[in-house]
Amino acid sequence: MNNSNKIVLAFSGGLDTSYCVPYLKQTYGAEIHTVLVNTGGFSKEELTETEKHAYNLGADTHNTLEQTEKFYQKIIKYLIFGNILKNDTYPLSVSSERVFQAVAIANYAKQIGADAIAHGSTGAGNDQVRFDLVFNVIAPELEIITPIRDQKLSREQEVEFLQQQGYDFEWAEAKYSINKGLWGTSVGGAETLTSDKPLPEEAWPSQLKKTDQQTITLEFEKGEPVALDGKKLPPVELIQQLNELASDYAVGRDVHVGDTIIGIKGRVGFEAAAPMILIKAHKQLEKHVLTKWQLYWKKQLAEWYGMMLHEGQYLDPVMRNIEQFLADTQSNVTGSVTVNLAPYQFTIEGITSDNDLMDAKFGDYGEMNKSWSGEDVKGFAKILSNQINIHKSVNSHD
Amino acid sequence: MNNSNKIVLAFSGGLDTSYCVPYLKQTYGAEIHTVLVNTGGFSKEELTETEKHAYNLGADTHNTLEQTEKFYQKIIKYLIFGNILKNDTYPLSVSSERVFQAVAIANYAKQIGADAIAHGSTGAGNDQVRFDLVFNVIAPELEIITPIRDQKLSREQEVEFLQQQGYDFEWAEAKYSINKGLWGTSVGGAETLTSDKPLPEEAWPSQLKKTDQQTITLEFEKGEPVALDGKKLPPVELIQQLNELASDYAVGRDVHVGDTIIGIKGRVGFEAAAPMILIKAHKQLEKHVLTKWQLYWKKQLAEWYGMMLHEGQYLDPVMRNIEQFLADTQSNVTGSVTVNLAPYQFTIEGITSDNDLMDAKFGDYGEMNKSWSGEDVKGFAKILSNQINIHKSVNSHD
Amino acid sequence: MNNSNKIVLAFSGGLDTSYCVPYLKQTYGAEIHTVLVNTGGFSKEELTETEKHAYNLGADTHNTLEQTEKFYQKIIKYLIFGNILKNDTYPLSVSSERVFQAVAIANYAKQIGADAIAHGSTGAGNDQVRFDLVFNVIAPELEIITPIRDQKLSREQEVEFLQQQGYDFEWAEAKYSINKGLWGTSVGGAETLTSDKPLPEEAWPSQLKKTDQQTITLEFEKGEPVALDGKKLPPVELIQQLNELASDYAVGRDVHVGDTIIGIKGRVGFEAAAPMILIKAHKQLEKHVLTKWQLYWKKQLAEWYGMMLHEGQYLDPVMRNIEQFLADTQSNVTGSVTVNLAPYQFTIEGITSDNDLMDAKFGDYGEMNKSWSGEDVKGFAKILSNQINIHKSVNSHD
Amino acid sequence: MNNSNKIVLAFSGGLDTSYCVPYLKQTYGAEIHTVLVNTGGFSKEELTETEKHAYNLGADTHNTLEQTEKFYQKIIKYLIFGNILKNDTYPLSVSSERVFQAVAIANYAKQIGADAIAHGSTGAGNDQVRFDLVFNVIAPELEIITPIRDQKLSREQEVEFLQQQGYDFEWAEAKYSINKGLWGTSVGGAETLTSDKPLPEEAWPSQLKKTDQQTITLEFEKGEPVALDGKKLPPVELIQQLNELASDYAVGRDVHVGDTIIGIKGRVGFEAAAPMILIKAHKQLEKHVLTKWQLYWKKQLAEWYGMMLHEGQYLDPVMRNIEQFLADTQSNVTGSVTVNLAPYQFTIEGITSDNDLMDAKFGDYGEMNKSWSGEDVKGFAKILSNQINIHKSVNSHD
Repeated sequence: MNNSNKIVLAFSGGLDTSYCVPYLKQTYGAEIHTVLVNTGGFSKEELTETEKHAYNLGADTHNTLEQTEKFYQKIIKYLIFGNILKNDTYPLSVSSERVFQAVAIANYAKQIGADAIAHGSTGAGNDQVRFDLVFNVIAPELEIITPIRDQKLSREQEVEFLQQQGYDFEWAEAKYSINKGLWGTSVGGAETLTSDKPLPEEAWPSQLKKTDQQTITLEFEKGEPVALDGKKLPPVELIQQLNELASDYAVGRDVHVGDTIIGIKGRVGFEAAAPMILIKAHKQLEKHVLTKWQLYWKKQLAEWYGMMLHEGQYLDPVMRNIEQFLADTQSNVTGSVTVNLAPYQFTIEGITSDNDLMDAKFGDYGEMNKSWSGEDVKGFAKILSNQINIHKSVNSHD
Repeated sequence: MNNSNKIVLAFSGGLDTSYCVPYLKQTYGAEIHTVLVNTGGFSKEELTETEKHAYNLGADTHNTLEQTEKFYQKIIKYLIFGNILKNDTYPLSVSSERVFQAVAIANYAKQIGADAIAHGSTGAGNDQVRFDLVFNVIAPELEIITPIRDQKLSREQEVEFLQQQGYDFEWAEAKYSINKGLWGTSVGGAETLTSDKPLPEEAWPSQLKKTDQQTITLEFEKGEPVALDGKKLPPVELIQQLNELASDYAVGRDVHVGDTIIGIKGRVGFEAAAPMILIKAHKQLEKHVLTKWQLYWKKQLAEWYGMMLHEGQYLDPVMRNIEQFLADTQSNVTGSVTVNLAPYQFTIEGITSDNDLMDAKFGDYGEMNKSWSGEDVKGFAKILSNQINIHKSVNSHD
Repeated sequence: MNNSNKIVLAFSGGLDTSYCVPYLKQTYGAEIHTVLVNTGGFSKEELTETEKHAYNLGADTHNTLEQTEKFYQKIIKYLIFGNILKNDTYPLSVSSERVFQAVAIANYAKQIGADAIAHGSTGAGNDQVRFDLVFNVIAPELEIITPIRDQKLSREQEVEFLQQQGYDFEWAEAKYSINKGLWGTSVGGAETLTSDKPLPEEAWPSQLKKTDQQTITLEFEKGEPVALDGKKLPPVELIQQLNELASDYAVGRDVHVGDTIIGIKGRVGFEAAAPMILIKAHKQLEKHVLTKWQLYWKKQLAEWYGMMLHEGQYLDPVMRNIEQFLADTQSNVTGSVTVNLAPYQFTIEGITSDNDLMDAKFGDYGEMNKSWSGEDVKGFAKILSNQINIHKSVNSHD
Repeated sequence: MNNSNKIVLAFSGGLDTSYCVPYLKQTYGAEIHTVLVNTGGFSKEELTETEKHAYNLGADTHNTLEQTEKFYQKIIKYLIFGNILKNDTYPLSVSSERVFQAVAIANYAKQIGADAIAHGSTGAGNDQVRFDLVFNVIAPELEIITPIRDQKLSREQEVEFLQQQGYDFEWAEAKYSINKGLWGTSVGGAETLTSDKPLPEEAWPSQLKKTDQQTITLEFEKGEPVALDGKKLPPVELIQQLNELASDYAVGRDVHVGDTIIGIKGRVGFEAAAPMILIKAHKQLEKHVLTKWQLYWKKQLAEWYGMMLHEGQYLDPVMRNIEQFLADTQSNVTGSVTVNLAPYQFTIEGITSDNDLMDAKFGDYGEMNKSWSGEDVKGFAKILSNQINIHKSVNSHD
């Protein structure tokens, strides 16, 4: 980039993106416009602090895009509809957030007429691809600048550069790299860089505070969570309150091992009390109200959706088609789910729904058939065996 | 059936099949040959007791087919290879056992030249279809007799009939219907007939006996469990020992809600400590040693395999094809998995394997790229965005 | 059925359903209300003829439900969206029609307060299941009466009965059983009952009339056919005109071998000029305007949709969800397709579309890259090889 | 590359790779070892000619790796087992060949201790990725050199350079770029660079020579073609003879529009008489001998296999797993298929097989049920409707 006038920098306030502000200013002689997209991971205080920090580092402007509600409407809602857990484990806490932020940042850059977008990702993770991919699509005319990745910088080198520039912050020697958001908190580093070691108790963001079990109810309406313990709440607030409540039990922790977009295996801890509870509760409700083939196809499409979102391909139009499918399956997913919270674990106790297909009027599983006869089942099994029977008969000629 | 000389009766010693012995004898005037296929659910004492019971009821012969090892080799092994949990929950404890027993019974009936096979299933469950389907294929020439289903008998009616015949057993008023096997114990009845009530603590077969956490290791070789805590064991023994060990922590409990073969929804509790631990451990190991697309396709095929097994379609030749696929994926699934046991829950702590693809030589997730450059990833993201980029450009003409 | 007052009979005017009128009247002493659902297979003359015939046989009332347009809107449209060819061959000519008719008949029966519904299907085909399934869902309270199936009647027996009853029609000894509809004509019997013999030329409904090749254009708008050779037409008329035009070239013939709902293999000839041309043209257009993963998932869902429709499970709610998905993918499927008609075959020549993703601005396949560099592809291939490379390296330790 | 001593060049003798010989020699001052992997596309004369040509251009050594038989055993066989047609159209003529050649070349380079491998691909096609990917996996330590891609050279520039170097060959101004192989011939350029124009008659490699129809038989044994018109032949010879025979009818032509690995849409003509006939014949045989779910899953896996092969990911271990699955499904795919050849088209007339599941002993489709009753089907439809029925009943509460 020769004469960039304006660079938009995706800014979190961490070491990597802090490095980028003076580095970019100095290297490109351009205006640096830092931007932070809040998707629920930052408190007001943190946002103010980050803004101050950006200006301290020399940012020409700093903007906070508050998009938690939009994040729920555009992505989280579908993760609930689809019961999406990557590799049957991970609720896509960081993945969903990063992709959504990339979209907001690219649009912001176009809006203010920037010449380039910069991000502070390393060359070994997923975020770099998510940013690049989304920027390439929404703002293909803008250059993408990635100082940390390009220079393969270590933490120490970054701190040294900042100190040389006169920025003498306290860069705590954090053992773990933490990413907090509406849909969960990830914990990377140290043990997660090995295959065999679990995270120690102290690494987890929430510590056990309650030991008395507690039973809560969650209400869903057309697939969306609408009430907690009988109290109607907007979804974002419900997620936040449920998370606070459940974190006292230290539930929703796990370690995800998965394939990164760049082909290596990655391992990361996460704590996501509300997401894990909501997904399991929603899924149990669906087992009662959807047909076998609805459950089957929802799962196929939702897992694909999760994979593509994880891999930054959120803007492929097939994602919009899948969202339509998922939304359409939710028309009967209305009812109430009871969840038991206990130290380090929760269990789904049961559901009630007007749309429950487990209706005793027709028959009780294993006990009594009321709307069909033994003869009917005999005929059913007879016909169902036809092809296998013919196959066996035809192929036993030798 | 007019002049059946020989009826083979699938006999478990429970009320339903006990009813069948005198009923069939009296109704058909035929020889009654009871048969029990042990797949690991019965102790030696129980088997002797059941045999005595059969003869007491008037059976002409009683046979126990001991097939636990064969059950592992023919079915359980593939459930492990496939990490199969129906609806992401249920290890197919009863389903797998019943189908396997049906095959053994049908072959036994042909071998002794029977004219008919009888089973004691009701008209509201899955077992009736499993028995019918398998019998229709292996022994289509034999009549299938199902007294309980045909007469829609209640428990009370069966007891009354037996008493009239002079069989004055104590038929305990069991609140739950229990099915115990190598691959788990199911608990049906009472609360499971509702959608909203959990099973009470006392309904579960195993009660908490230990509270001190314990860490164990499981070794797998080409996908099969071969050692527990460093001690080499044949798979069946390993499953049994692991189950004993883990049951003291009351782990592996859950409630499965699923679609029955006959279209109604069914709900059933189960306790399957060893199956749940083995599957989760095996699955974690696979996440480290298999490629993304191996994991993807294994899952597709395994879920289908589980569904067809559950629904009694075990003899469809596609099942053999899938077994070949699953077995072929296991060549590198060798390694050791550490599992932490705690009251009511277990967690997978980590794995070690010579085939682990999370190899720091190539790069550390999120930290440092060693075998590729930032430029490589930039190019990767560029090309990966091509189609979405073109799509967006072409379709924004309005 | 003891005192049925009203029986609705699905009536086509053929031998089987003709038999049913006097048979049902005589056997049940009930009012017989014949009904024919026209989905485009009957001309006005044929409809009048059939009505007269029904009354001659003693029907109390006869009704023609004219639903060709609704048939297109409810089913055919989605078969085009999904490019649905069962087993990559058969456009579901009869399957789609029969299921749709079953729905209309069941609703009609409820509307006039019938006590039973009768259909004339044999016990060896798919139609019996389609009728039964749909009737069971829409009108589970009505008895289903199936004289031909229940009595396993042969053609000769039916003719004899009708003659005994004084109905001395000429029942031509038809060699083939023909079913004509909007979406194609099926030809069954004779050679199709073997696996090795093709249908002879004279068995096909349309004979070659033109030998000069002809090029036509088809326009699609959001997936629906809207113009033929530049002339705007409502879809049903377009299908009919295209069929007439193309039938002169004797195209759209094939033989379908498939799995029936009842497990046996079935073989049937069909001629479906318009459906085959429309599907191939629509599919070619989609190859240009949809992304790779849209094409992939459309295909998965569409094939399932076709299978379930074929098997009479049209009323499962998953079918509505899939329709939503398919419709949502069509927003860009707008453009024009050129088709060459020649004796016995047609070829798609090309397409033009404003939404064509094959846009030379970005690059020419195999020739020149304009919006990416060789370095980009090198990086792409590097990253794409990462996992396989690691896999090979890790597993070559021996 | 600083001091490469040995460069292996994938050499076809065409303009691009001809350019590379003197260019590489001059640029790198290295030994140039040209290699051609024959997979059935070159005659002995052409191979000799190409060798002479390589030496003329200054190659230090030239080697022909004759691997047609191995190509069949390693890849083509599975394309037949899987009936693989990309986008339901293209038999992967070039894709399969190029990937296989890349493997052979990478192994050759390692064997002779080369320092680098060069290929002559442009930056706008699939081949570049196939070569890169395979080389990255098999020989990650070797540099990959791609002069044409790196310099974005046009045909004219290449000719000019060669002439400057004193190589004054006749470089025919070929309108089409042709790639001939065992599994088909591709035709690119001119019209295929547009979306709307068909290839003219003269562009096709084979011209119509016969107009009299001809009926031939193909025999398959466990999925592999083993005899043509009753004459036993090794598969490669059978493919070649069938191709010669059928090419006289100008059949097997089509135009493939697909997604390239690099995200753009590509369009290419191909002529593949033998592949198209063998695949359609094999597929028809399978429709008779495999069960519904075997057909279903074979198709899923085979399409994925085709996609990954097309995209150069042949070395992912999932490909080996899928090959095992496909091979395992072929145990009963034995029988004879009759094919009618006519000008510009062929039709499958029928099959005979001892394993044919369309066995009249059990029933005739649409005519008579012999091994089940009307009551059986009634029960079957009743049970099959249970869930949809319950769904409708439960959800019509408003």
